[in-house]
Formats: sequence, C-alpha cells, structure tokens
Amino acid sequence: LKEAKRNELQLLLDELHPYDIANLYEMLPDKHRNRFLSFLSIAQLADILQELDKEQQQNLLNKLDAKKAVHVMDEMDNDDLANLLEDISPENKINFLAKMKKEESQVVQDLMNYPPETAGRLMTNRYVWIPQHYTVKDVMVKLREYAEIAESINYLYVINEEKKLTGVLSYRDLILSEPNQQVKNIMYERVISVTVDTDQEHAAQIIQRYDFLAVPVVNHDHVLVGILTVDDMIDVLMKEATEDIEKLSASGKDIDFDTKAPVAAYRRLPWLILLLFIGLISGTIVSTFEETLEKVVALAFFMPMIAGMTGNTGTQSLAVVVRGLTTRDINKVVIAKIIFRELLVGIIIGVTCGILISVIAYIWQGSPILGLVVGSTLVVTLIIGTLAGTIIPLILHHFKIDPAVASGPLITTLNDILSLMIYFGIATIFISHLM
Amino acid sequence: LKEAKRNELQLLLDELHPYDIANLYEMLPDKHRNRFLSFLSIAQLADILQELDKEQQQNLLNKLDAKKAVHVMDEMDNDDLANLLEDISPENKINFLAKMKKEESQVVQDLMNYPPETAGRLMTNRYVWIPQHYTVKDVMVKLREYAEIAESINYLYVINEEKKLTGVLSYRDLILSEPNQQVKNIMYERVISVTVDTDQEHAAQIIQRYDFLAVPVVNHDHVLVGILTVDDMIDVLMKEATEDIEKLSASGKDIDFDTKAPVAAYRRLPWLILLLFIGLISGTIVSTFEETLEKVVALAFFMPMIAGMTGNTGTQSLAVVVRGLTTRDINKVVIAKIIFRELLVGIIIGVTCGILISVIAYIWQGSPILGLVVGSTLVVTLIIGTLAGTIIPLILHHFKIDPAVASGPLITTLNDILSLMIYFGIATIFISHLM
Repeated sequence: LKEAKRNELQLLLDELHPYDIANLYEMLPDKHRNRFLSFLSIAQLADILQELDKEQQQNLLNKLDAKKAVHVMDEMDNDDLANLLEDISPENKINFLAKMKKEESQVVQDLMNYPPETAGRLMTNRYVWIPQHYTVKDVMVKLREYAEIAESINYLYVINEEKKLTGVLSYRDLILSEPNQQVKNIMYERVISVTVDTDQEHAAQIIQRYDFLAVPVVNHDHVLVGILTVDDMIDVLMKEATEDIEKLSASGKDIDFDTKAPVAAYRRLPWLILLLFIGLISGTIVSTFEETLEKVVALAFFMPMIAGMTGNTGTQSLAVVVRGLTTRDINKVVIAKIIFRELLVGIIIGVTCGILISVIAYIWQGSPILGLVVGSTLVVTLIIGTLAGTIIPLILHHFKIDPAVASGPLITTLNDILSLMIYFGIATIFISHLM
Repeated sequence: LKEAKRNELQLLLDELHPYDIANLYEMLPDKHRNRFLSFLSIAQLADILQELDKEQQQNLLNKLDAKKAVHVMDEMDNDDLANLLEDISPENKINFLAKMKKEESQVVQDLMNYPPETAGRLMTNRYVWIPQHYTVKDVMVKLREYAEIAESINYLYVINEEKKLTGVLSYRDLILSEPNQQVKNIMYERVISVTVDTDQEHAAQIIQRYDFLAVPVVNHDHVLVGILTVDDMIDVLMKEATEDIEKLSASGKDIDFDTKAPVAAYRRLPWLILLLFIGLISGTIVSTFEETLEKVVALAFFMPMIAGMTGNTGTQSLAVVVRGLTTRDINKVVIAKIIFRELLVGIIIGVTCGILISVIAYIWQGSPILGLVVGSTLVVTLIIGTLAGTIIPLILHHFKIDPAVASGPLITTLNDILSLMIYFGIATIFISHLM
C-alpha cells in the first residue's frame, strides 16, 4: 500500500462503526490481519475487541504484543474486559492485570468477584452520578467533564452523602429545569434498581418491561455501584432465547451457521448417543411383549403413531413451560396453576384424539377391540405425555439442575418408553379378545 | 373509599411506572376496574393502554365512554395506536379516527399505510430533528420546546433544507461543544438508517448489533420520516424468539401461562390431529411390510429407536437453521455452506451411531445380519434426517411459506416415515439371511 492509500484507509476506519470494523477484520484472511491491526488506534482495538466472539478475541490478543494488549485492555469497558479475562489462562490473567493501570485493574478485579450472570458482573462503571445537593448548573459542569468517559449518560443517578441511591434524573428533566434548581427537588424518587446479586435475566426483564435504557445497580447497603445498559441486556435476552431453543432441540451448545462440521457433530453426538441408549429401552419393552406382538402383528402398525403423538404433546407442553420459566417470575401458585392447566389440556387432547383413533383403527383393521385398545392407550398416554412435558422441566428448575437436561428429545424419548409400556400393557390385557 | 384515601391513591398512582399501574389493573377483579380507571388521568390511561396486551386493550377501551377513549387515543404514541387500531372493527376504527385530533389521526393513518412488520409501521414521530444550519444554542432552545413530547431524545437527527437525513448528534456532542458551533460541523455524518419498508427484524438486528438506542427511518428520497426506538425493537426480537420456539414445538400460537385450558387445547389440537394422520402413514408403511415383520418380530424392537433417532437429528438441524434464519442475513452462499455442513455432520453422526448400534444389536440378538441391517439403516436415516431438518425449512423460507409449517413435530413425523421405509426396505432385502 502506498502512503496516500494508507491515509485514506485510516480516514475510512475512523468513520466506521466498531461493529463494521470488526466485521471487516473477520472477513480478512489470517495473513492480512496483522497488517490491518496496525492501522487501528488503541481505542479502536478496544472497541472491536468488544464486538468479537470469545474465540476471535483470544486470537486477536495473541497477535498484539503484550504491551499494546495491556493498553487496549485499559481502554476497554470493564464489564467486557471481565468477560474476556474469564477465559484466558490464570497466569496470563494475573500478568495482564499486573501491567494494567491500577485503578482499571482494581475495578475489573472487583467485578470478577461477583458470580457470573449477575448484575454485579455485568454492570459498567462508565456512568455519571450526581450528589443530590447539586444544582442543575453544577450538573451541567460535571456532565461536561464526564461526557467522554461515560458509556451511558441517558439517566443521571442521584446519590446522598452516604452514596446511597436516592433518585434519577433524565436529560429531559435537566433541559426543562432552571439552572439554579436543586437536583433533589426535580429528581424522580421512586427509582427502580437491582442489587449486585440480581440474576442477569431478571435485570434484563426489568429493562424490557419498563422500557428503560439503563438500570442502576446497588449493593446491600443501597449504595450505587454501577449501571446495566440496555444493549448488554438485549444480549442477555437473546442468549436466553437461544438457550431455550437449544433445550428444546438438544442441538448442543453454541452451534451456528459458522460452526465447522466436526465441531457441530462433536457437540451433538453426546446427546444422540445417550438418546440411542434410551431408545433401546423402548426396544427392550417391545421385546418383553414379543409374545403379544407375535400374536397380533397389527399392534406394530400403531406403534409409531402412539409414540410420536405422546412425544409431540410432551414437546408442546415443554415449550410453554421452558419459555414461561425464562420470561416470568415463578412461584408456587403459578406452578400449581400451570400443572392443573396442562392436566386439563391433556384430558381434552387425549379424549379427542383417542375417540378419533378408535374409529379409524376399527375401520382400518375391522376390529372394535383393537380400536378400543389403541384409543384408550392414546387417552392415557397423551395425558401422561402432557404432564411429563410440564412437570419434568419444573422439577429440574426447582432443583436448579442444568435445564438443558430437560431437552425436547429427552422428553420425547421418555414419552416413547412410557407410551409403549402403556400400549402393550393394555393390549396384553385384551389379548384374548384381539385374536 | 373516603376522600382522604382517594387522594392518597391518586398520589401513589402518579408516582408509579405505567407498567406497574397496568399490572395493578390486570390484577383487579373486573367489577373494580371501572372505579380504578376513574382515578387515572388521560395521559396515564394512554400509558397503561400501551402496556396491555391486545385482548385487554379492547376490554379497557370498551369500559371508557367514546369521548374519553378518543382523548386517550390522542395521547397515545402513534406506533402503539396504529397497532391497537389494527384489531378493532372497521366501523369503530373510522369512528375513532374521525373524532381524533386531525393531525394525530393523519399521522396514524399514514403509519397504517405501511405493511405490518416494517420499519414504517413501527416508527414513532416523537423525536427531535435539527436543521443542519442550527448552532448548538439554537438546538438547546428547540430541545427545551420539544423535550416533553419527544419519546426518545437520545440522538438528535440532523436534516438539510430538503429534509433529507444528513447526520446525527448525541447529547454528549452537544454538551462538549461551544454554544456558537454549527451543527453541521460537529455532527456525525456516516449515520446508519433504515427505510420505511425495512423488515422489522432487520431493523431490530441493526439496533442490537450497533448497540443503538434508536435508528432513524427514511423514505425512498432519504427524507427523515420517523425513528425506531430500542424498547420497541427488544419486543420485536423477543417476539421472533418466541415464534422460533413455537415453530420447533408446534405448540400453537400465543400460549403462555395465562392461557385458559380450553383455548390452549384448541390451539394445539389442529397440529396434533394433522400429526396423528401423518403418524398413521408410518403405520401403513409398517403394515405393508407385515410379512417381513411377522417373520422377524425382533425388527420391531428397533423401530422406536430408529424413528426416534432420525427425528432427533432432524430437530437438531432444524433448530440451527430456524435460529440462523432469524438472526442473520441469508444468501445463496450461506445456504450452500449450511447444507454442505449439515451433510457432513449427518455423515459423521450416522457412521458413529451406525457402528455403535450394529455392535449392540449383534450382541443383544445374536445375529450379525440383524446388526448390519439396523446399523446400515441408521447410517442412511441419520444422514437423511439431518438433511431433511436442514433443507425443508430453507425451502419453506425461500417460498415465503409460513415457517410454522416447518415445525419440529412435523419434521420428526416425516423422518419417522422415511426411516421406517428405509428400515423395512433394507430388512426385506436381507430377509432370507435374517431367518
């Protein structure tokens, strides 16, 4: 590249949004990346580092020399940096933190003391707080001072002498107020906040429900310690949604369009092999009833339909419960209500489908008893399938077991086993009539 | 209620956030709701109407007398109002619009001319635009004037004499600038915008990727006509995620914890009955191979496992594709890449599980030929299952067919049929060796 072109590129990069620069970087073949990075300022490097996924972050950091990497870290938002440091080797982490500016590394280390997925871990310190005795004029002065470092200055949080959160002020309020008015007289006092140990999901729900752009985080003495911003909370909400989908499909963690085939296969296989063995249990059940089946081979015709339908009702209930668990607050009343509701749904669905299949089976195979066996099986299995899809995720949720265990395929496979046992059980009782 | 209490309640309501008032309203038994509404101001009514779901909105509107309802509508955000009006009867709609303030009803009618789920339909007109020749001081004056009506004043969009969007200015920029500087010299020119016909999903992705609080909407002449705000876009993203989950589980539209049992059953039954009939196709296939099955009943033992595994691989691929379709831009290269990727994944998974089950079947049933039949079936069906889960949703997406059709249970059931045909087909070929 000639010098002129170099300058041009520099200008272009200065105009681009970090997301676009990060995209550009990712599209480059590896051999050109070092050269590209040399065009970027420390601030730009910090910005694009925040846009990359974890793998790419490590990759980029390795390309920088240690001194530059530390400078970049000094510039990063502390919440993003805490996330980044979580995944690098302990020696490297200590090494980096030691070389960083003392105040920055202290803030990051404080953040990392909070458990992952809490408000404390995700909060940023780039916000502006206002002592409540300030006048509007004082606020404007302070704002001018802090505008450049503050990540979000949409709301100004007001604190008292003990640094406790006492109110919130919007830009709108500031603009509409006289310069000499005191903050404490114009602020909104009923400020909604979360504590450092609030679950990230719950915090994200608050931002979503109230249409906030940020929410303040306080410690247990109600002292303001940080804020959560809407952009980070969108990411939390989207992550939750993706996790729900992974649960329902057992598709394995973190598989997207860019995942390489062997990696995707490797992430899915453990589930499939487990399900293969559970599927063999269904086989064992069928083999137990070998005698029944040999006598009435027609029973096999309805096996796929019964197992499938029971699995489907289970998946339907599971989807409602899994989504409900992530989008709303759960208590005993809600749980009792949803179990009772799904029981009713199971009964309605079971009876409807049971009557329908009785008639079809009777007409198809010409045996009223077979119709009765298949129909009554479906009534029982659809009710049980619906309840299994409801209760199993609730139990797992209650015991705080990784809910990925309650995946759709697992419930489908369990429902397979149950439905075949019930089917052949009922059929064996009626066997003399069926022949 | 005594007068004193009434005043107290009034004060409390004034302090509460609309979301909380709406919650309070929803918790009240129907007979107390009229009384409760009488406490609320027009502005409060407009606010809580925006928080309620469609059913409750209609219900509340019916409780107000027509004149009050119109006043409330005048106060509502025009994007929310357009959404509300969409669902009421045409006569009522015309009636309301005629009685509303002329300027308000004009804006709403303009919005309703844009197709649903586009940026044009969702945009709000409560924003502040700045002519580019303004000085910072002029801006502050205009802001003071508009602060109260603007829904989002985080960014100030700058327009030229032809009202075309030329730049954007943040509060931060304003605060850090001298009062006499001209806007056009301090604004950021590379402003990212969407057009009125941009799909709502795409607009939401832009807000999410760039961490914006709002994005400007322009018409085809690049004239600024509105803005989209992050709070509305979060709702779009969450709705998309819920729709993906509905697709994967065929759980029916809009079923949550509050849906009544008969309604939930009614919404799920159409799917289940369809799946029941498709499930019977599997039965017909098995019945075609009745002779094979009668000779080697042990074949039935592996039926649930084979059908289940094929269904599971299909669901896994489906989840990845459905999520990918909503979260990223799709083109031919991406589609070719994902199909090839899933083919590879299918081969890896199929061969692994096939070898495993051959050994198990051989040991369990003591027949190497049976092991070979079950194993080779699984190799073929897992590859086909993976591809079906990948290609079917892509085809539906291409033809813009309601993707709910590509639901998890449907793919599972289709995979059932395919896998049984392949299984019994292979078994019939080897039948002489199996006996």
